[in-house]
Amino acid sequence: MKPHAFPAIAVHGGAGDLGADDPASFGADAPRLSGVREAARAGFEILARGGSALDAVEAAVRVLEDDPIYNAGTGACLTSAGDVELDASIMDGLTLRCGAVAVLKDVKNPVTVARRVMERSEHVLLAGPGASAFARSVGIPAHDNALLVTPQQRARWERLRVVLGPPENAAPEQPGSLPTSKGTVGAVARDREGHLAAATSTGGMVMKHPGRVGDTPIIGCGTYADDTLAAVSCTGHGERIIQLTLARHCADLVVQGRSAMAATQEAVRILRARVQGEGGLIAVAPHGEVGFAHNTQVMSRAWSRPDGTIVAEL
Amino acid sequence: MKPHAFPAIAVHGGAGDLGADDPASFGADAPRLSGVREAARAGFEILARGGSALDAVEAAVRVLEDDPIYNAGTGACLTSAGDVELDASIMDGLTLRCGAVAVLKDVKNPVTVARRVMERSEHVLLAGPGASAFARSVGIPAHDNALLVTPQQRARWERLRVVLGPPENAAPEQPGSLPTSKGTVGAVARDREGHLAAATSTGGMVMKHPGRVGDTPIIGCGTYADDTLAAVSCTGHGERIIQLTLARHCADLVVQGRSAMAATQEAVRILRARVQGEGGLIAVAPHGEVGFAHNTQVMSRAWSRPDGTIVAEL
Repeated sequence: MKPHAFPAIAVHGGAGDLGADDPASFGADAPRLSGVREAARAGFEILARGGSALDAVEAAVRVLEDDPIYNAGTGACLTSAGDVELDASIMDGLTLRCGAVAVLKDVKNPVTVARRVMERSEHVLLAGPGASAFARSVGIPAHDNALLVTPQQRARWERLRVVLGPPENAAPEQPGSLPTSKGTVGAVARDREGHLAAATSTGGMVMKHPGRVGDTPIIGCGTYADDTLAAVSCTGHGERIIQLTLARHCADLVVQGRSAMAATQEAVRILRARVQGEGGLIAVAPHGEVGFAHNTQVMSRAWSRPDGTIVAEL
Repeated sequence: MKPHAFPAIAVHGGAGDLGADDPASFGADAPRLSGVREAARAGFEILARGGSALDAVEAAVRVLEDDPIYNAGTGACLTSAGDVELDASIMDGLTLRCGAVAVLKDVKNPVTVARRVMERSEHVLLAGPGASAFARSVGIPAHDNALLVTPQQRARWERLRVVLGPPENAAPEQPGSLPTSKGTVGAVARDREGHLAAATSTGGMVMKHPGRVGDTPIIGCGTYADDTLAAVSCTGHGERIIQLTLARHCADLVVQGRSAMAATQEAVRILRARVQGEGGLIAVAPHGEVGFAHNTQVMSRAWSRPDGTIVAEL
C-alpha cells in the first residue's frame, strides 16, 4: 500500500492560449505562475505534516478560488446574463466519496461547499438555489455574488456583449459563437498513507447560458479519484471533456499500465482526436508519480518533487 | 460497420424492491410491464422503418415519462420541499454528442429538452431555472409542474413527511435517512446503420434536497453511448452510480470483450462490492446484442428480439 513514503501534489490554473481575451490571460505569466506555486505549497504543507490528500486538494483549490486572476471563486467569468455561477467538485480516492456543486451563487469557496455535500448530505451533486440553501444550512456564510466579480471580468463581459449582441441573440441557437474560457483550477494529491484525492473549481465558460454546467462538477468528467486507479483534474472545453468522461478515462489509462504522464498525454490526444476538444489534465498515480498534459498553448501548473521542492510551469 | 442488419432496443422502468413504499411499486406488476413493453414497441417501430437510434430512445423514454406509474415526467417523486425536479439525458453514439437537463421544472418531457440542449445549444447540461428558460427559448411549451404530480406521489410524500419530520429535520445532516427511489426510466438502441444511442429520465430520489442531481443527467454515469463501445442506461441509487461512472464503465467492459449481458452483470456486481450500491443497467453492444442486470429484487424492462418480438420482464 505504501510503495513510496513521499507525498505529492499537483495543481493547475487552467489551460488556454497566450494572449486570449481573458483578464487572466497567459500573456501575464508571472501572476499565473505565482498563484499555482502558492496553491501547491499550501497543499504540500498539509501533506508534509501528515495531513490527508483530501485536505490538501481542498486547501490548494481554495487558494486559487481566492486569487482573482483565476476563473474560479473570486474572478470567475460571467454568464450571458452578466452573473457569476460557480461549479466545483471534490473526490476522496480511499472511499470513493465525492461531492459537487453547480450553478452556485453567493459563496466564496465552492470547493468547500462541495466537500460539505460529500460529508454532510446523502447527495453527490447539488445545483442552483438548492446548493446555496444547503451551504447556509451547514453554516457556510453568504458571500455576495457581486464580490466575486472582478473589474477585469466585468470589462471582458462588456466587450463580449458588444461583439455577440444582447443575450437573446448570443443565445444557444448559435452553436460555436461563444469563446471558450479555460481558467478552471484544480488539484490532485497523494498523502503519506498512499491515499489520493482530486478537486476542481471554476466559473465555467464566459457568456455561458444561465444554468450551464460544465465538466468541473461532474464526477468522472472534470474530477476523479480512486486509490486503485489515479486522481485526475481536468481543465478546458467542458462540453468536450464530458463527452469522453475524461477524468475517469485518464485514471483507467493509468491502471492499464501507463505512467501518469503518459496517461494525461493520451487523454489530451483523444480529446482532440475524437471530439476536437481543447484542454488539459493533471494526474497523480497511486505511487505518487505526477503527470500533466495539455493540447492548448499553455497550462499553468505547479507540482511537488519528492524532496518537497515546488516547480511551476506554463 | 454492419455485422448484423437488425435493429435492437431495450428499455427499463427502474430497478427496485417488491412492495417498496412507492406508488409505482413492483407489487403491481402488470402496469409496470405493459408500460415498458409499450415503450420498447414505440422505439422499435422507429428502428424498423429505418429511423435512428437517437429517435428511438427519445420516443421510448417519452412514453415512460408520460406514464404516471414511472418516476419520470408525470408521476415523478417529490423533493423534501414537495416539488417535482426532473433530470434527463440523451447521447448519440455516432457523434458522441449529448445533452442533459437537471432540476428542471414545468416541462412535460425532459428527454426532449435534453435533446434540444444537444442539438440547439453549445452546452451539454443545463440545470435549474436556466434549463426551463432554455426550453422556452426553443419553443417547448410550459407544462405546469403541478400537472406532473400524481395523487399517489403526493400521498407518498405526505406519509414520508410524517416519518421523517419537517424538511429542516429530514435535512442533509442525516445521511442514510432517505429512502432511495428507483423508478428511473431509460432506453438504449441500435439502428439499422449500426449506430447506438441511450437516454434516461427521472424524478430522482424521493425527499431529495432541492437541487439534488443524481446520475441520470450525468453523461458517463446514468447514460453513455459510443458506437465503438456500447450504449448504456442506468437506474438505482444515483449517488452510488456516480461514484463509479457506471454507464461509461459498463461500456468499457463491453469493448474489453465482455458480452453486453456479462458487462451489465459485472457492473452491478461492482456497484454492490465497491460502494454498496443498488441498481441496474441496460446495454446494447455495437452488433446489437442486448444486456441487462440488476442487484435489486426486480427491474422492469423490455427488449426486442431480432425478429421484432418485444419481451417484457420484471
